[in-house]
Amino acid sequence: MAEVTTGQPVAYLPNKLGKQSLQFKSEPRILATYTVVGPMEGEGPLGGLFHTVLPDTLNGQTCWEKAEQKMLEDALQGAAGHLRIPVSDIDVCLCSDLLNQNTTSNFSMQKTGIPHLGIFSACAGFAEGLLLGSVLVDGGYAARVAVGVASHHDAAERQYRFPTELGTQRPPTAQWTVTAAAVAILGRSSEGGAEPAVTFATAGRVLDLGQKEPYDMGSAMAPAAADTIKRHFSDTGRNPADYDVILTGDLARVGSELLYQLLEQENLDIRRQHQDAGILMYDPQRQDVHSGGSGPACSAAVFSARFLPALRQGTIRRLLLVATGALHSVTTYQQGETIPAIAHAVAIESRTG
Amino acid sequence: MAEVTTGQPVAYLPNKLGKQSLQFKSEPRILATYTVVGPMEGEGPLGGLFHTVLPDTLNGQTCWEKAEQKMLEDALQGAAGHLRIPVSDIDVCLCSDLLNQNTTSNFSMQKTGIPHLGIFSACAGFAEGLLLGSVLVDGGYAARVAVGVASHHDAAERQYRFPTELGTQRPPTAQWTVTAAAVAILGRSSEGGAEPAVTFATAGRVLDLGQKEPYDMGSAMAPAAADTIKRHFSDTGRNPADYDVILTGDLARVGSELLYQLLEQENLDIRRQHQDAGILMYDPQRQDVHSGGSGPACSAAVFSARFLPALRQGTIRRLLLVATGALHSVTTYQQGETIPAIAHAVAIESRTG
Repeated sequence: MAEVTTGQPVAYLPNKLGKQSLQFKSEPRILATYTVVGPMEGEGPLGGLFHTVLPDTLNGQTCWEKAEQKMLEDALQGAAGHLRIPVSDIDVCLCSDLLNQNTTSNFSMQKTGIPHLGIFSACAGFAEGLLLGSVLVDGGYAARVAVGVASHHDAAERQYRFPTELGTQRPPTAQWTVTAAAVAILGRSSEGGAEPAVTFATAGRVLDLGQKEPYDMGSAMAPAAADTIKRHFSDTGRNPADYDVILTGDLARVGSELLYQLLEQENLDIRRQHQDAGILMYDPQRQDVHSGGSGPACSAAVFSARFLPALRQGTIRRLLLVATGALHSVTTYQQGETIPAIAHAVAIESRTG
Repeated sequence: MAEVTTGQPVAYLPNKLGKQSLQFKSEPRILATYTVVGPMEGEGPLGGLFHTVLPDTLNGQTCWEKAEQKMLEDALQGAAGHLRIPVSDIDVCLCSDLLNQNTTSNFSMQKTGIPHLGIFSACAGFAEGLLLGSVLVDGGYAARVAVGVASHHDAAERQYRFPTELGTQRPPTAQWTVTAAAVAILGRSSEGGAEPAVTFATAGRVLDLGQKEPYDMGSAMAPAAADTIKRHFSDTGRNPADYDVILTGDLARVGSELLYQLLEQENLDIRRQHQDAGILMYDPQRQDVHSGGSGPACSAAVFSARFLPALRQGTIRRLLLVATGALHSVTTYQQGETIPAIAHAVAIESRTG
C-alpha cells in the first residue's frame, strides 16, 4: 500500500501535557464510591472504613470466582445507591480484574444493561479506569462513568500460582492478593461540585527490568512506578511537595524501598508523602501477608475507604494515586519470560471549602 | 458513609447520542493501518491484500505466543512506517488480544516506550479501541493513537480448548481463530483530511442468552451484535440503507444467520449491506475452518485490508464495523457457566472527493 500521509509535527493539544499526561480542565468529580472486602481485609487496620465486610470468602456463592463477581455487582449497586440513582443512570462502566479474560468484570456487567468497555492493566486497572473515565466525562462523552475493579485472593492464587489446597510456603517477598471490589462513579462538576476532582492523569508505559520472580512483584513494579511518577512531575511541572499523599497501589514493603532508591537517582524524594495501599491494607504483626497486599482492588479499596473521605473533608488537599500492575501470566512465567509492569497515575484534589 | 450527592437528571452532553452512542464531531481519521497474517490467512481469498504474510506460524520465534507478540510489534512498526513517523511520535497505544492477562499486548508494548492503555472485550477489542481512540483524538487528549489487536490460532487453541497436538475433532459450528495482527493509527483531521473518518460509535452491553458451547461462539455473539446494531440505529437516527457495508467481526456462517433472524424481529433487514469478516477471511471450499474465522485480529485485518482501501478510494462511502466478542474463559466453561458476549460498533466514512 502506498503511503498516503506524511508525518507532521504534533500540534498543540488542549488537554495533553508533556509526553504522557492529560489535564482535565472541567475537573470531573468522584461522585460516589463503594467498597466490599473479605473477612481478612475487614480484620485489618482499615476494616472499619469499608462499606461492606463479608463474613466469609464465598459471599453466598458456590465458588470464589462467583464470589468475586458478586462483590463487584454489589459495589456497583452500592455506589449507585450512594448517589441515589439506579445503575441504569450510569452511562458506561469501565471494569477490570485479574482473572483470565476479565471474566469477573464481564460476568458482573451482564446484569447492568449498560455499556461496558473492558480495560486491563492488572493491578493498575483502577487508575487506568479513572484516567479513561475522566476523559469520557471531561470530553462530554458521558455524564456518569462507573470504574470498577475486583480481586479475590483464592481465585487469583489458584489461577496464578498453586492450588490453594496445597498450602505452598511463600517467600517473604510474596504479596497477598486482596479480596475486595471497589467502584467509583465519576461525574461532572455540575453534579458533584464539592466532591474530589480528577485534575491530571499520567498514562504509564510498559517497563521490564528483567525480574522473573512472581513471588516478588513489588520489585517488578517499582521501576514502572518510578517512571510514571517522574514523568508526572516533569509533564505537569509539579513536584512531590505539591501532594499531601502519593499513594502507590501495591508495591508493598519490598517494592516501596526500591521505589525510593530509584527516585533518589532522579533527585526525587517522596518518602514524606508516600504511602502504599498494599502496606496499609493489613497489619503485619497480626496478619501473615509477608510483603503486603496486592490486586487491582487493593489500591481502589484503600483509596476509597481511607483517603477519599479525607479529600472530601479537605484534611488532604491533593493526592496522587499511582496504581501499579505486573503484566505476566502463568504461560509467560512457564515460558521463562520476565515480568513487565506498568503504572498509571491520577491526581485527585479536594474541592471542599 | 452518608450520601453526599443526590442523583440529578443528566444534562445535555455534546458528544453523546441516545443511550449508548457517541458522535465525534472533529471526525478523527484512520491515518494508516498495517496487517500481518499467518500462512493460512495468506492463502485465503484476501491473501493478496495483507501487508505481510508470514511463511510459517512461528514467525521466527520459539513459540506461538512470542510469534503473536512479534506480529503485533511488526504491525505497529508497519503502520508508523506508512505514516513516516517513528513509533515514539504516537501518543498512546490501546491494545488487546485473547491470551490470559493480555500478555501479547503488554509484552509487545514494552518495546515502544510510549504509554499503553490495555483494553479487553475479546474479539470486539478492535472496535473498542477505535471507540476509545477516537474519544482521545476527538477530545484533544492525543494527536495520534495506535489501536492494535492480535490473535494466533495455535496459541489461542491450546489456551482455550485442547492441546493442539491432540488434533481434536471440531463440530461444524466451530470457528477458527485467525493468526494475524493489525494496527490502525488514528489522528486528527488536520493531519489526515482525506483519510476515512470515524464519525460515530456505539458501545455495547454484555448480553448472555444462555449459550454454553465454546464450539459455537457465533450463536453466543449474535444477540450482542443485534442489540448493538439496533441501538446504533435508534441512537443515531440512521438505518441500514445509510451504510454501504455493515461488517460484523466474526459471527461466521452460523452466527450471521442468527443475526438476520434477531434483527428481523426488530423489523431491521441488513442482508443487503451485511458482510462478516469471519466468512470473508477463508475459502470454505479449500480451507477447513467450519463456520469461519474468529479472533480480535479477524475483523481488524479484514477491515484494514479489504474495506479501508475502498473507503479511501470512495467506492464505499459508509461502513459500520460491528466487532463481537465472546467473554468466557476456560474457568467459566469448566464451572458450567454460559457465554456472555458483547459487540461494539464504529461508523467509518469516506472523506475522499
